[in-house]
Amino acid sequence: MRVSVAPCAGFCFGVKRALKIAFDAAHKHTGDGPIFTLGPIIHNPQVVARLEREGLAVIDNLDDLENPRGGTMIVRSHGLPRSVLEDASRRGIRLVDATCPFVKEAQERAEQLAGEGYAVVIVGEEDHPEVLSIAGGLSSPATVMAGPNELDKLPRETRVGVVCQTTQPIGHLIAVVNRLLEQAKEIKVFNTICRATFERQINALELARRVDVMLVVGGRNSANTRRLWKLCQETGCDVYHIETAEELKPEWFEGKEEIGITGGASTPQWIVDDVVSAVEETQAPGDAGEESRP
Amino acid sequence: MRVSVAPCAGFCFGVKRALKIAFDAAHKHTGDGPIFTLGPIIHNPQVVARLEREGLAVIDNLDDLENPRGGTMIVRSHGLPRSVLEDASRRGIRLVDATCPFVKEAQERAEQLAGEGYAVVIVGEEDHPEVLSIAGGLSSPATVMAGPNELDKLPRETRVGVVCQTTQPIGHLIAVVNRLLEQAKEIKVFNTICRATFERQINALELARRVDVMLVVGGRNSANTRRLWKLCQETGCDVYHIETAEELKPEWFEGKEEIGITGGASTPQWIVDDVVSAVEETQAPGDAGEESRP
Repeated sequence: MRVSVAPCAGFCFGVKRALKIAFDAAHKHTGDGPIFTLGPIIHNPQVVARLEREGLAVIDNLDDLENPRGGTMIVRSHGLPRSVLEDASRRGIRLVDATCPFVKEAQERAEQLAGEGYAVVIVGEEDHPEVLSIAGGLSSPATVMAGPNELDKLPRETRVGVVCQTTQPIGHLIAVVNRLLEQAKEIKVFNTICRATFERQINALELARRVDVMLVVGGRNSANTRRLWKLCQETGCDVYHIETAEELKPEWFEGKEEIGITGGASTPQWIVDDVVSAVEETQAPGDAGEESRP
Repeated sequence: MRVSVAPCAGFCFGVKRALKIAFDAAHKHTGDGPIFTLGPIIHNPQVVARLEREGLAVIDNLDDLENPRGGTMIVRSHGLPRSVLEDASRRGIRLVDATCPFVKEAQERAEQLAGEGYAVVIVGEEDHPEVLSIAGGLSSPATVMAGPNELDKLPRETRVGVVCQTTQPIGHLIAVVNRLLEQAKEIKVFNTICRATFERQINALELARRVDVMLVVGGRNSANTRRLWKLCQETGCDVYHIETAEELKPEWFEGKEEIGITGGASTPQWIVDDVVSAVEETQAPGDAGEESRP
């Protein structure tokens, strides 16, 4: 049984950067006031647990803080809506910005489009923190489109501006723009899809087409990991989404020749390495059976 | 044998307007200096011949005029490049603008895009006078793309602006924008396809899918007529492009039940009517044969 790991599996530039900022801030923290993120800094429970051990709390709501003044909030990699940042500042909380620069660009481009008078469309998942952070900076409400199935939600405006959640597949953006070409007169599109995400998806698809079983490693709360899982399923091979090596089941590999592994942008290398080792050590029941025949 | 004429066959708004301007100018012309168009005012030889009888000459080059000063140039429906208009003015020629307002919009949008610093792409036919008039107004050279087969010609720029020849099928615009979404960061598109052209194409396609023979009536030099002819061919029915009823051949209708007719934007109603009458009067050889049996 061969094991192949997709190129680009694991931490992207924005996640690495956010974690460096968070660890540095946690180490430097003097203990005056709380240090925390609002929501997990990245969508990987194992990494977030490590950061919590360094003293970085994860809270759900600024109201949960008893004494916020003098505290430090690391702005998560997905960004936060402008209103939340302003609310935190009003409470005397210091902000340390770990927003991914590509997310920041999507935020700024959406603001630019709104400022230029376009009806703004965000191609992405309505409840995803990144999308909330993009939509939350706009003076007028944006239309959020999860994909090709929601095209009827598109605004019937003459001038429409489009940005994209950085981890969306290009096919979603294309579907939205194609429909707009038929119903709007002027369309301005910023392709804010992160190049690394795009390449990761292409690499994962290429690998999935070749192998018998594909393992997609990453947080169950990670949208880009779930997206990889869905994309790989389109190839027809067996695909499993796991967070850690503990979830592997030997029967998945019974009679299989090649196993592919990829990881989301928020999946650390040590978890991918753990999975690779565990798979290599796995004796699929079928293999064992064959070997035990006389 | 039934004959069905597609809705929207015949003159479009821009052609009607251009002809009214041209006939009015020809009637008012006092005879001081020549009155002419540079290239045919619309792409229909029969209509142009009628205008010539009203005194409106068609010339190929301003240099062909012996005494241009005091003359009148009707700017053709497809527009003319800015440099040509300036050249005519310098020669003391009065301009009467019969440019289709939709073409004018495409010209202005292309200029706007160039002014905003976009690499400009014009989706259209390189040698078509409308495309030449759009490209000719720009300070820097535009890329002209005839369609999906030429996508590799697209500029590898970060910011690309797109306009479209008004009579192009939407599929060409979509193909160009889809490729740009994969290689540019910012794309601004003005869908300058004329709504009437779009509807004419849809109507022609619907009719062609239903009938046995499709007649596309219009100038052989008319790009939008040739486009209708090509589109109808995609349905698999027999399609003939004719300029006048004289070209009809009885054998085209042998054993056929339903005949569809459409016309280009520059095809006058009287030519469409002539064709309808001629087809209705046609006794296909096969029909005659059947009827003569005992």
